[in-house]
Amino acid sequence: MKLLVFLFLITLFISYTTSASTFKHPLDPLTPSELKLVRSTVQKTYKASSPTLTFQYIGLDEPEKALVLSWQSSNAKTKAPPRRALVIARFKNQTLEITVNLSKRSIVSTKVYTGHGFPMTTFDEQDFVVELLFKYTPFIESVHKRGLNISHVVCSVSSVGWYGEIKSKRTLKLQCFYSQGSSNLFARPLEGITVVADLDQRKIVEYFDRANIPVPKAEGTEFVASKQKPPFGPTLTGAAFVQPNGPGFKIDGHSISWANWEFHVGYDIRAGPMISLASIYDLQQQRYRRVLYRGYISEFFVPYMDPTANWYFKTFLDSGEFGFGQSMVSLDPLADCPANAAFLDAYFAGEDGLPVKIDNAICIFEKYAGDIMWRHTETELIDKEIREVRPDVSLVVRTVSTVGNYDYIIDWEFKPSGSIKMGVGLTGILGIKGTSYTHVDQIKEDVFGTLLADNTIGVHHDHYLTYHLDLDIDGEANSFMKTNLESVRVTDDNSPRKSYWTVVRETAKTEGDARIKLGLKASELAIVNPNKKTKAGNKMGYRLFPGTVAHPLLLSDDYPQIRGAFINYNVFVTPYNKSEKWAGGLYADQSRGEDTLAVWSLRNRSIENKDIVLWHTVGIHHVPCQEDYPIMPTLSGGFEIRPTNFFEINPVLKAKTPKPVRLPKCNSQP
Amino acid sequence: MKLLVFLFLITLFISYTTSASTFKHPLDPLTPSELKLVRSTVQKTYKASSPTLTFQYIGLDEPEKALVLSWQSSNAKTKAPPRRALVIARFKNQTLEITVNLSKRSIVSTKVYTGHGFPMTTFDEQDFVVELLFKYTPFIESVHKRGLNISHVVCSVSSVGWYGEIKSKRTLKLQCFYSQGSSNLFARPLEGITVVADLDQRKIVEYFDRANIPVPKAEGTEFVASKQKPPFGPTLTGAAFVQPNGPGFKIDGHSISWANWEFHVGYDIRAGPMISLASIYDLQQQRYRRVLYRGYISEFFVPYMDPTANWYFKTFLDSGEFGFGQSMVSLDPLADCPANAAFLDAYFAGEDGLPVKIDNAICIFEKYAGDIMWRHTETELIDKEIREVRPDVSLVVRTVSTVGNYDYIIDWEFKPSGSIKMGVGLTGILGIKGTSYTHVDQIKEDVFGTLLADNTIGVHHDHYLTYHLDLDIDGEANSFMKTNLESVRVTDDNSPRKSYWTVVRETAKTEGDARIKLGLKASELAIVNPNKKTKAGNKMGYRLFPGTVAHPLLLSDDYPQIRGAFINYNVFVTPYNKSEKWAGGLYADQSRGEDTLAVWSLRNRSIENKDIVLWHTVGIHHVPCQEDYPIMPTLSGGFEIRPTNFFEINPVLKAKTPKPVRLPKCNSQP
Repeated sequence: MKLLVFLFLITLFISYTTSASTFKHPLDPLTPSELKLVRSTVQKTYKASSPTLTFQYIGLDEPEKALVLSWQSSNAKTKAPPRRALVIARFKNQTLEITVNLSKRSIVSTKVYTGHGFPMTTFDEQDFVVELLFKYTPFIESVHKRGLNISHVVCSVSSVGWYGEIKSKRTLKLQCFYSQGSSNLFARPLEGITVVADLDQRKIVEYFDRANIPVPKAEGTEFVASKQKPPFGPTLTGAAFVQPNGPGFKIDGHSISWANWEFHVGYDIRAGPMISLASIYDLQQQRYRRVLYRGYISEFFVPYMDPTANWYFKTFLDSGEFGFGQSMVSLDPLADCPANAAFLDAYFAGEDGLPVKIDNAICIFEKYAGDIMWRHTETELIDKEIREVRPDVSLVVRTVSTVGNYDYIIDWEFKPSGSIKMGVGLTGILGIKGTSYTHVDQIKEDVFGTLLADNTIGVHHDHYLTYHLDLDIDGEANSFMKTNLESVRVTDDNSPRKSYWTVVRETAKTEGDARIKLGLKASELAIVNPNKKTKAGNKMGYRLFPGTVAHPLLLSDDYPQIRGAFINYNVFVTPYNKSEKWAGGLYADQSRGEDTLAVWSLRNRSIENKDIVLWHTVGIHHVPCQEDYPIMPTLSGGFEIRPTNFFEINPVLKAKTPKPVRLPKCNSQP
Repeated sequence: MKLLVFLFLITLFISYTTSASTFKHPLDPLTPSELKLVRSTVQKTYKASSPTLTFQYIGLDEPEKALVLSWQSSNAKTKAPPRRALVIARFKNQTLEITVNLSKRSIVSTKVYTGHGFPMTTFDEQDFVVELLFKYTPFIESVHKRGLNISHVVCSVSSVGWYGEIKSKRTLKLQCFYSQGSSNLFARPLEGITVVADLDQRKIVEYFDRANIPVPKAEGTEFVASKQKPPFGPTLTGAAFVQPNGPGFKIDGHSISWANWEFHVGYDIRAGPMISLASIYDLQQQRYRRVLYRGYISEFFVPYMDPTANWYFKTFLDSGEFGFGQSMVSLDPLADCPANAAFLDAYFAGEDGLPVKIDNAICIFEKYAGDIMWRHTETELIDKEIREVRPDVSLVVRTVSTVGNYDYIIDWEFKPSGSIKMGVGLTGILGIKGTSYTHVDQIKEDVFGTLLADNTIGVHHDHYLTYHLDLDIDGEANSFMKTNLESVRVTDDNSPRKSYWTVVRETAKTEGDARIKLGLKASELAIVNPNKKTKAGNKMGYRLFPGTVAHPLLLSDDYPQIRGAFINYNVFVTPYNKSEKWAGGLYADQSRGEDTLAVWSLRNRSIENKDIVLWHTVGIHHVPCQEDYPIMPTLSGGFEIRPTNFFEINPVLKAKTPKPVRLPKCNSQP
C-alpha cells in the first residue's frame, strides 16, 4: 500500500511537471521556454551590454476575452489566440511596456511609461541594495555601536510609499534584523536606522541612525522545531489518508476537472494564483455553465499604524510592489497540503529574464473535512424513519505567498453545491518594532502596538485583499442586483402581526450604485444574468457571502489611503475592461492613487446587462496579541460566492455518497 | 485492516454506551436509571391514576457552580455535589416545578408556576393531538374536498406564539402535508386549514378551512436516494481514513481529553449539547487553565415573515417550545460524521417519565481538513532556506437537531491553538407555503417568499441562535473589555503621515455597557481576567470573533419581537445567575417576553471583575432560493472564541507534526 501511494505520487510529479515547456491553454502562464524566448526577443533590441535592460515583470499578455471564449467553445479545435507576453522593463531610468509576440518572436509594441509610480521591484535588485549596505561604512559602524556581530545581521527591503513628494525617485528603504541565536530574524529588528537606496543610481542615498533601541533577545523567538527544548506539545495524532484509486480530479496541463467543476489554474508573478473559466456541470441542462471567467487577488494593502520616522512608510501594496506571485513559496508536501495533494510548479523571470522555478508552488487536493453536504431526518411518516445524509467533499487549490515576515495562505475551494470559497490564512511573523519598554505599566504614550515581550512591540496594522472576480453568470451579460431586506409595518387589522420583512430588489444601473459599504443594511448582493430565468421566473445568479470585512480607519486625505482608496468600499462593480486589472494601479510602487479602482469607478459607467467585474475586499484589522508571538497561529478569513437561483434545484440532490473505500487485505500489523 | 477498524468501532460502542447507568461527573446528564428514579419518586406523590401528571421536562438540576469547581479541583476525591433533578410537570392544568433529590429518592421542593407561558410540549402530546385530528370529521371532509387520500396525509404541530391575548390556553396549531409519491412531506402543505388543539382539554377547539390552494405536486420533491432517477451526479471520490492506533482523544463517561484540551460533553433535552469545564493545558504554566465553565445554545428564535392567517404565528422558539435536545437525531456513522468518529447516546424522558434513547446522538471526531496551524518560509538567511509548517488538527463534537422540517448541525470545534469554534449548519427542508402561482410574472402582491416551483413558495424567515457562554478565563472573576479601534489625526509635523488608528480600551462596568450591536464600529470584544496579566502586562483574555450576525428586522413592538427581544443585541453580558439560563425565558411557549435576557439585562447589574456570562447570537436572514429546494445544501455560520493574551506565547509553537502513519504491510490489492 505504501509503495502504491509512493508510486502514485511519483506519477503525479512526472505528469504535472513536464508540461512546462509548452502551453496547452491560451491562459496558461508563460512557460520557461517562452520566458527565454521573451528575453532573447527583447534583448535583440535592447542589447545585453551596459546599460542593461532589467525585466521588472514578464507575464502573459492576456488574449482578448472573446478569442479565449470562442477557442473554448470550439473545444480547442480552432487556433488558439496569438500568444503574447507583456514585459515591463527598466532601461536608461525609464519604464518600458513591451509587448512580445511569441510565435513571431518579435516585439509588437513598445511604450515608455511617463506617469507616476514604478513597476514591481525584482528580487535581484533587492538583493543588490542589501549587499550595498553591507559595504557601507556608516552602517557597519551602527552595527558595531550596538555591539552586534555583523555576520549575523540580515537586511531586507521595504517600499517607500508616497507622502506627497512632487518628484519621486525609484528607491527602497532597508531594514535590518539580528539572526544570532534564532532563526526568527523579524522578531529582532535593529530599530532606529533609516537607509534609502536608489535603484536607478544603485547606491545608498540616505542614511541616518536615530537611536540605540535594544535589539530584542533571541530567547523565546525561535520557531524551528529542531531548536526547541522540551516540554513539547500538544501532541496530535496522525492519520493515514488513502485514495487507492487516486484522486477524483484530473489535471491536464493547467486545466482541472473534478466532480461537477472544470476550471483553469494559472498564475501571474504579480497576482499569484489565477482561476479562469470555472464552469459547473448542470445535471438538468446537461451542460457546463460558466460562473467565473477569471478571478485573482488584484491588490493587497497592508498599512502599519505607526507614524514615526522609522515606520510611517510601511503601508505596503504587496502585489504591486513585491509580486504576490513571485512571492509564492514551495509547499511542504505533508504539512502545507494533505497527503492526497497534487502539485504544480511555477516559474517567474528574474531581473535578467531567465526563468526561476518555484517547486510545488500550487497544490490541489480533495478536502474531506467531515462536513455534511445536506441531510434530513424525517420522523413524521408513519412506520418509517427516513434519514438521508450526503457527506461533503470539496476541492482546494492552495498557494502560500511569503512577503517578508508574513505568510499568506490563499485557498480557492470549489464545492459540489456550486459554492466557491475564497480562503485567506494569515500566519508567519508579525511586523515587530524594537522598544526600550519591558512592561505595559512603563508605557505612558501611544506605542502603536502591543508589547509582547521585552523590547518587542507587535505593531497595529491592517490586511486588505482585493479580489478581482470577473463573474460570467452563464454568459457575459450580467447585472449587479441588491436584494434589500426591509421592515414592513402590517396595516391589515386582520393580522395579529405588526410587522415582517420583505425583499426589495434593485438592479445597479451604474458603478455608483454598486459601491457598497457592508454591514450598514440587510442586503443580499448578487451578480445575476438578467437574460436567464428559472422556470419559476427567478433571475439566475451567484450571491456574495462576505466573510471578513473591515472599513478603512486611515483618514481619506492621508497619502496611504489615497493610494489605497480601492478599499474605501467593500464592494465595487465595474464594466469589464482589459486594462483595469490592478486595483491599486499598474504601477503601484510609489503610486499616487491616480490609477485605482476607486478612480475608475468614478467614471460611473453603465453596468447593467453588461460584462461586469465584481471587486470584493477581505479586510482584517490586526491588534497583535501574545499568541501571535513568536509566530502567528493562522488567522483565517475569506468569503464565498454561492449559486442563488442559478440552478432550478439543489445541484447536489442526486449526488451519491462515495462508496466506502476498501483497503487492501493485509497480513501484518504496522 | 478492515477487521481492525471494525473491531475498534465495536469497542467504542461497548465502552461508550454502558456508561448510561451511573454518573461519573456532577454535570453528567441524567442516566436512564436516574430518569426512572425521578419518575417513581414523583409518582409516589402524584398518583399514576387519573388525572395523570405529565412530565414536560426532566433534567439535571445543576449543582452550585462552587461545588462543581471544588469537586473538580480535588480531582473528584471529595464527595460529588448532591445529585438533583428538575422536573417540570403538568398536573390538573397547572405547571409544577418539582426538585427531586436522587440519593434520597425524595421531592425536595414543589412550586406551582403561575406566570405567563407554558413548558415545552412533549412528543407524546404532539402525537396525541395529531391523532385527534384524524378522527375529526371536518378535517376528513377538508381532505376529501381536496381530492386527497387521507392515508397519505401527515400532520405535525406548530406552537401558537403570543399575540397580545390576555388569557392564554395551552394550545398547539396543526398543519398537514401530503406524502403520496414523495418522502418530502414538508414541500407539500395542505394550505388554508387552521386547527387549534387544546392540550389540557385534549381536544380540537378551533377549525377553519379557508381556501382550496393546490397541494404542490410530488414531482421534483423527492430527496431519498433510492427513489431518484438518473442522471445522477456529481460523482465524488471516496477515501479511506485510518487511525491505526485509534483516535487521539479519550472518553471517560462524558469527559473528553484530547491534545491540550479537556472538557465535559453533556446535554439537556431542552438545550441540546452542553460543553462544560473546558480547560486548556498551558505548556509554560504546566497546568490546565479553565476557559469555559458551561456553554450551550440557550434559545433559538425562528420567525417567519408571512403575516397572513395561516402563517403569522410561525415565530418559533425552537428550544423552549420543542426542545432542541429531545430533537437531536441519531447520526449516520459514515455520513453525518467521518469514519474516525466515536459516538455517545442520549436519553430523554417521555411524557410518562420513562427514558427514551437516542442512539448515536453525539459524535466526536478529529478533523483533518488540511488546514495549516502555522507556517513560515524564511528566505532572508544566507545559505539556508527555513521552512517550518505545522498541519492543523481539531476536535469536533457534533449533534444534529431536527425540528420539523429543518436540520441544524451543531459543532463545537476545539483547536490546539486555543480557539473554540461554534459551527451552525442549516439544512433540511424549507418552510414551504402552498400557492396558486406557477410563475413570478403572475405575482402582483407580496407573497412573503420566493416562488421555487409550481404552487411552491419558500417563505422568508430568520434563524437566531443565542449561545450562553459562561466563560471563566482562568478563574471566575472576569470583565468584559472593548478594544475600540479609533482613527487618530497626526498633528506632529515631523511625520509624513496624516493618520493612523490606535486602540482605546474600555471595561464594561454594568450590563448596559455590554449590549452590543455588531458592525457599527471597529471594536474587538473580549472577556478578560483583570486579575491576571502576562509578563509584559497584558490582561489575559479570550476574544469573540463574530461570524454570522444579523440585526432584527421585525419592529420592536411586534409580539414575536417582544418575546424574542434577546436578539435585539448581538452581544449581552450578564453576571452569572443560576436561574438565568434560558434567553427566551424558562416558559417560552406562549411567553410574553417578561423573562428574557433583554429584560434581565435592564437591571444593569455590575459586571466588572465578576463571574460573568457572555451571550452571543448567531443570526441569518434567509431569503430562500431555488437551490434550497427540494432540500437545502448546508448553509454554514457560526463564530469563534480565541485566546487573546491568554497565553504568554503561541500555545502551539512547540507542537510537533504528527508522525506519518504507517499502514500495515499488504499482500494484495483491493
